[in-house]
Amino acid sequence: MALLYKSDPVRGARWKELFAQHAPDIEFRQWPDMGDPDEIRYLLAWMPPENIMACLPSLEVLFATSAGVDQFEFDALPPELPVVRMLDPAIERGMIEYATFATLWLHRRMGDYARQQREGQWQAHMLVPTEKRRIGILGLGQLGCAIATHLAGYGFDVSGWARSPRELANVHCHSGEEALDGFLASSDIVICVLPLTDATRGILNADLFARMPKGAALINIGRGEHLVEHDLTQALDDGQLSAAVLDVLSEEPPADDHLFWQDERILLTPHVAAMTQPDSAFPVLLDNLRRHQRGEPMVGRVDLQRGY
Amino acid sequence: MALLYKSDPVRGARWKELFAQHAPDIEFRQWPDMGDPDEIRYLLAWMPPENIMACLPSLEVLFATSAGVDQFEFDALPPELPVVRMLDPAIERGMIEYATFATLWLHRRMGDYARQQREGQWQAHMLVPTEKRRIGILGLGQLGCAIATHLAGYGFDVSGWARSPRELANVHCHSGEEALDGFLASSDIVICVLPLTDATRGILNADLFARMPKGAALINIGRGEHLVEHDLTQALDDGQLSAAVLDVLSEEPPADDHLFWQDERILLTPHVAAMTQPDSAFPVLLDNLRRHQRGEPMVGRVDLQRGY
Repeated sequence: MALLYKSDPVRGARWKELFAQHAPDIEFRQWPDMGDPDEIRYLLAWMPPENIMACLPSLEVLFATSAGVDQFEFDALPPELPVVRMLDPAIERGMIEYATFATLWLHRRMGDYARQQREGQWQAHMLVPTEKRRIGILGLGQLGCAIATHLAGYGFDVSGWARSPRELANVHCHSGEEALDGFLASSDIVICVLPLTDATRGILNADLFARMPKGAALINIGRGEHLVEHDLTQALDDGQLSAAVLDVLSEEPPADDHLFWQDERILLTPHVAAMTQPDSAFPVLLDNLRRHQRGEPMVGRVDLQRGY
Repeated sequence: MALLYKSDPVRGARWKELFAQHAPDIEFRQWPDMGDPDEIRYLLAWMPPENIMACLPSLEVLFATSAGVDQFEFDALPPELPVVRMLDPAIERGMIEYATFATLWLHRRMGDYARQQREGQWQAHMLVPTEKRRIGILGLGQLGCAIATHLAGYGFDVSGWARSPRELANVHCHSGEEALDGFLASSDIVICVLPLTDATRGILNADLFARMPKGAALINIGRGEHLVEHDLTQALDDGQLSAAVLDVLSEEPPADDHLFWQDERILLTPHVAAMTQPDSAFPVLLDNLRRHQRGEPMVGRVDLQRGY
């Protein structure tokens, strides 16, 4: 019985050690050295190979190395093949860290201070008390809930929106299309942590920005395709939005002449909010492998209809 | 019986309202309209007037509007006059916010990403797990303890150093001159929250930087005079330090040709980490006024020998 790993080779070396040490019954193989394909029961991948079942006829589970699985072409996957997202606690911690950083950056107008520094200007701005700053989390999956709870614990006034109803201590939870208006109108900073699906592609657009308070700000740690990039530039030019922090773009790396490189109102980072770390992800993966072997439900299983 | 206020006039208007509403027995007067000086028993000031006792012969207590009182010339104050620091919870919250922001900025190499953005470079750097990042808090007064506890709760590996012994949950506490070496050698990011005294003036200098790990970083939210600014530039040039976040400088605003304006390794903000807010500071001040009236010890009383 073997697991095939198809992702970053540097981290692959660490995965291999962890399997040898803690699960010697599962042979770890690293793409493209797959040996006898008939022996491969599990695939751990950022991007699966084409013709997955022809390539791996004995495959029983596809494990993503990432929390989001929008890079998978679900139509090309056999409908009965279980697909499992990676719920590595290091991803959650990384996302909380990045969201906290980006929220404080905007809350404290650090982009303005960075610009003032370059311009040689020493000028303090009014300090908004934490409890008066309204943070809106767009998407209340595992990561959205963790971020919302963390920022609420910090003292911010936190709301969250999701398609289906949620309940979270100290967070005003909104759900459904009809609640989106009220949620947006009361969010000074919107943080997008939505999954990328046909329903959410391009959701961060001119129409949505217009429903936020004038001068509000945006953080995107979902996927680049959530954002209509031209609409963001327009909203910043119009003053409808004041600033943004983006960790993802629709094309990564962006073209050399992409407007965001030189836009001082935007802080742009190269998709670094969170990374799967073998040491913290291994126990999560192993727990799911054992669950599968015992015929129990796995944690993080993707609903192929919803796409997350 | 009257209190004389001598500080920012805009916030003075709010102080006046709070006194009228909650302590009408204490008349609030705003500098320079002091009326009959003999009636003034309390002074609430950022900077006291010269010849304080000649000016205010009935003065019983000097309350600072700030947490630090190094702007006071203690030699010019009568030794029997009680001096009380402002322990406004908004200051503590502001300092925690700023310290968290600055720590995440350095921990996540955000200064490098901001530079890369301007240079059109999309390049991720290794992510150091929170628990592997060693934060050293220089100064364990009320603010230092609050910051240390908060960052430890975040998952960072936090140490603290103070002149006298302290105990704090989840924080490695060091004390005394002989423990400084070990503390510095194990701090990837040092946060200075020391009071400014003759013993701490210029403490952030080449000698101290040399005792930190190569490539370490500095946050100064104490006073500008803690830092020997030329030594910081030198340490950054040598690679002994990699980056710094400074909220205070020895001269504010700094001269137009100050090197820090254009130094990309330094994030410089115009003394905005925390500000006294009348609404949260008033209950603290009133509690001390009532304590004084009942002959009880006041909270935040300054030891004039130590200077804090």
